[in-house]
Amino acid sequence: MSRPDLAPLAAALPESVPFTGPEALERRRGRPFLARLGANENPFGAAPSALAAMADAVAESWKYGDPENYDLRQALARQLGIASDAIVIGEGIDGLLGLAIRLYAPPGSAVVTSLGGYPTLNYHATGFGARIVSVPYRDHAEDLAGLAAMARRESAAVVYLANPDNPMGSWHSAAAVAEFIDAVPEQTLILLDEAYGEFAPPGTLPPLDTDRPNLLRLRTFSKAHGMAGLRCGYALGESQTIRAFERVRNHFGVNAVAQAGAVAALAAPEHLADVLARTATARTRIADIATANGLVPLPSATNFVTIDTGRDAAYAAALLAALSDEAIFIRKPMAPGLDHCIRISVGSPAALDLLAEALPRALSALA
Amino acid sequence: MSRPDLAPLAAALPESVPFTGPEALERRRGRPFLARLGANENPFGAAPSALAAMADAVAESWKYGDPENYDLRQALARQLGIASDAIVIGEGIDGLLGLAIRLYAPPGSAVVTSLGGYPTLNYHATGFGARIVSVPYRDHAEDLAGLAAMARRESAAVVYLANPDNPMGSWHSAAAVAEFIDAVPEQTLILLDEAYGEFAPPGTLPPLDTDRPNLLRLRTFSKAHGMAGLRCGYALGESQTIRAFERVRNHFGVNAVAQAGAVAALAAPEHLADVLARTATARTRIADIATANGLVPLPSATNFVTIDTGRDAAYAAALLAALSDEAIFIRKPMAPGLDHCIRISVGSPAALDLLAEALPRALSALA
Repeated sequence: MSRPDLAPLAAALPESVPFTGPEALERRRGRPFLARLGANENPFGAAPSALAAMADAVAESWKYGDPENYDLRQALARQLGIASDAIVIGEGIDGLLGLAIRLYAPPGSAVVTSLGGYPTLNYHATGFGARIVSVPYRDHAEDLAGLAAMARRESAAVVYLANPDNPMGSWHSAAAVAEFIDAVPEQTLILLDEAYGEFAPPGTLPPLDTDRPNLLRLRTFSKAHGMAGLRCGYALGESQTIRAFERVRNHFGVNAVAQAGAVAALAAPEHLADVLARTATARTRIADIATANGLVPLPSATNFVTIDTGRDAAYAAALLAALSDEAIFIRKPMAPGLDHCIRISVGSPAALDLLAEALPRALSALA
Repeated sequence: MSRPDLAPLAAALPESVPFTGPEALERRRGRPFLARLGANENPFGAAPSALAAMADAVAESWKYGDPENYDLRQALARQLGIASDAIVIGEGIDGLLGLAIRLYAPPGSAVVTSLGGYPTLNYHATGFGARIVSVPYRDHAEDLAGLAAMARRESAAVVYLANPDNPMGSWHSAAAVAEFIDAVPEQTLILLDEAYGEFAPPGTLPPLDTDRPNLLRLRTFSKAHGMAGLRCGYALGESQTIRAFERVRNHFGVNAVAQAGAVAALAAPEHLADVLARTATARTRIADIATANGLVPLPSATNFVTIDTGRDAAYAAALLAALSDEAIFIRKPMAPGLDHCIRISVGSPAALDLLAEALPRALSALA
C-alpha cells in the first residue's frame, strides 16, 4: 500500500526530541531517580494559593478554558504596568517559540542563536525550514556583540538570546542587553527568553518596552512559579507584534487549570520571595558541594548551577552517567566549548543531601 | 521604526479565532450566562477517580510532564488492543489537527472538508497555506461519496470527516465509513475525527485498523471524559504515520495534570457509562423541548442536538441572540444549507430547566 507524502518541509526533518525526559531514562534504568536535578524545575513548587486555585479549577475542568486568557492577561498587565494587548499566553515558552518562528522566520531565513543554546529554539527553527546560524559562547556567556553582528551580517529573521542563560547560568546586565537590542536590525525579531528572569539579581532585566516592534520578551510559570507541569508561558511585546499570534495560535491550547493557577501565583509575591530565597540557598549548597569535590561551579543567575569539571566532554558525560548510576538525574551542555561542564538544578535539601553523598562516589568511580 | 516582516504564509492570514469563547460573550454582555449549552462540553464531568488523580497531579506539577506520554499511551494501547506506537497524544484534537496539516498538507495542496464542518480544521489548513475544497452536506449529514470523489478529483493531501458530525450531530454507519475510507486515494491522508465517538450508537465506529498508512483517527478526553479544560486528545494510526508527529510536535506540550487524569479516566468505565446514559436523557429532553416549541430536533449521535428552526439563517441567528438575552449560551451552524439550525449542547437538568423556560420567551420575542 502506498502512503501519503510528507510535506517537503516535514520530510526534511528528523524524528527528534529536544530533550529526553527523566521518565524515559527511568524506564531504561528500570528504577526511579532518587534526586531529580536535571530539568531546572522548581522543587519548592507553586504557592499554596495557586495549588488551591488549580484544585478548584480541576473540579470545573469539564469547561473549555477561556481562549482569550483574559483574566491572566489582565493580571499580568496590572502587575507589569503594561497594556493587556501587549501580552499573549501560550503553552509554555516552548509553544510560543514555535509560533514566533512560524510567524517571523520563513523557510530559508536565518535564525541566529548561540552554539549550545536552548535546543528547543533550534528544533522549531529547523522545523519551519529556517537556517540556524550559531555564535559561540564567550567565557561561558552568550556573546552579545557577536549575536548582534551576526544578525546584521545575515539580515536575520530572528535572533535568540536567553538572559539569564540556559545551560550556562550566566547573565548580562540590563544595560548590556539594551545595547544588544539597539544593535540588532529593526527588521530582525529579537526573542529575549527570560524564563529564569525572576532568579536573576536586580539590574538584569531591561525595563519593559512594549513600543519596539522587533522585541518579544518570553516568560513562564514553569520556573520561579513552580508550574512546569501545567504548561503556561507568555510573551510581551508591541501590540501589533503580539496580535500576529492570533493568526496561528491554538486558541484553546492553554488549559484552564494553568490559567487559574497562574492568576493565583501572581497574587502570591511572598511565596515567590520564599522560593527565590530557598533557591539561592540551594544554589550556594550545590556550589559548595562542587567545590568540596574539586570541581568549579560557575556563577548562576538561575535555579541551576553549571559546573566546570576541569576535564573534557567525555569525562563530563561519564560523570553524568555515574551520577545516574547513583540514581541522581542531572543534565549537561552538549556543544563544543561548553560540554566539559555538567548542570545541576536546584533541589530540595534532601535531594542535595543525596547529591553530596553521591558525587564523591561518582567521581571515584571515574578515577 | 520599521518592523520585522511576517513570513509570507503568516502575512496572508487573518487575525482570526475559530470560535469566540462564552467568557468573551459574557464580558460583552456584562453578566454571566446561566446555562452554558454552546460548546458541546460534558457537564457531568470527569470520573471522581480522574478528578482525584488530577488533584494529586496538581500537587506534583512543579515537574514537567513526561514528554513521551508513556503511561497514557500504554493505558490506551491496553484498552484499545493496539500497539502503543500507533498512538500519539496532543493538546486536544485541535492541536493534533494542526500538526497533521503541517505534516501532510503542504502549501497549495488541497484539503477536502464539508462546507460548514469543524472550523478549526479550516483554520489550520489555511494557516499552513493549504487550499480548502468544500463539499456541501447532504440531508444534514456529511456527504461521504462526495468527499471521496472530491479527494480523488483534487488529488487531495488531506480529507477530513467527523463521525459523528459536528455541528449537525448526524452520523454514518461503520460500514459506510469503511466504504468511504476505501474510496479515498492511498496518497490522501484521512483525518477521521471521532471526538463524539463514545456517544454514538454501536456500529458507528469502524474497527480499529492501524495498518493503513493514510488513516488517522482522532479522539479526545474533552467530550465523553469531561476534561475539555485539560486539553488532551490523541490520534491513532499506522506506526510510521504516527511517528511523523515526532518531527513537529511540542514534546512537552501535554500537561502533567491532563496525562494523569486521562489515565484515570480510562480506568473508570462505569463513570463513562453513567455519562452516556445521562447524556442520552438530556438529549431526549432537548429534543422534547424543541418539539414542544414547534421546532424540529435532528437525530444526534453526539452530546448536542441540532435543531431545525424551519425558518432562515437570520431567524436562527436572532433566536441565538434572544436566548443569549435569556442568559443561555448556545451556538449555531454558520454555513449555507445548515445555518437555519441552532445547536444546543447537553446540560445539567437545572440548565435544561432554564432552557425550557426561556425558549418560549425567546421565540415570542421574535414573533
